[in-house]
Amino acid sequence: MSNQPIQAFEPPYLMAVFTSVRTEGGSGYTETAARMSSLVKEIPGYLGHENAHTPGGLSITVGYFRDQEALDAWRTNLEHREAKARGVKEWYESYTLHVGTVERSSGFVRGR
Amino acid sequence: MSNQPIQAFEPPYLMAVFTSVRTEGGSGYTETAARMSSLVKEIPGYLGHENAHTPGGLSITVGYFRDQEALDAWRTNLEHREAKARGVKEWYESYTLHVGTVERSSGFVRGR
Repeated sequence: MSNQPIQAFEPPYLMAVFTSVRTEGGSGYTETAARMSSLVKEIPGYLGHENAHTPGGLSITVGYFRDQEALDAWRTNLEHREAKARGVKEWYESYTLHVGTVERSSGFVRGR
Repeated sequence: MSNQPIQAFEPPYLMAVFTSVRTEGGSGYTETAARMSSLVKEIPGYLGHENAHTPGGLSITVGYFRDQEALDAWRTNLEHREAKARGVKEWYESYTLHVGTVERSSGFVRGR
């Protein structure tokens, strides 16, 4: 994932905000996270995703999708569903998901 | 800010996702960020906010508001506007803001 914010897209589009705190145990998380990060890019209508992770603390991942059909394709993807089930079983102490429609977006890049 | 994700609220509500990368220079950022984190809590209709920050990389802050009126009160708050202007001038290499309406939310807490 790049070290710059993903740029603003033309509204409307969907965003899914996934905030989570990990358990201390559980194996295979890193590999699965990398696989999901790669797999989501194959979804038609996927626009981008980005993550920030405070060491020992909260992780926030935001995924951007062109429309509901694209988000549904990701939401119901079999491999993604298996990863989510394993997340509940092993990897997450707690998480929250917020899904909504972006109505306004803007951005700034220094020197442009 | 707590070390757990903010829990899901009852939709609809608004969320503002602010992703940013800092400049290397600029003073006063930490103090202003702490002040904004405190100030936003005074806004009627403010629901919560949370941040994750990858060291040396991307920062993601998400603010949750009950309705447009609450978000507008924050957006147009004078002290917040001054902080934003200073952010463009000094603190941010780049940022993106995505504002939308949450239509679906869910959460998980281990052991509940």
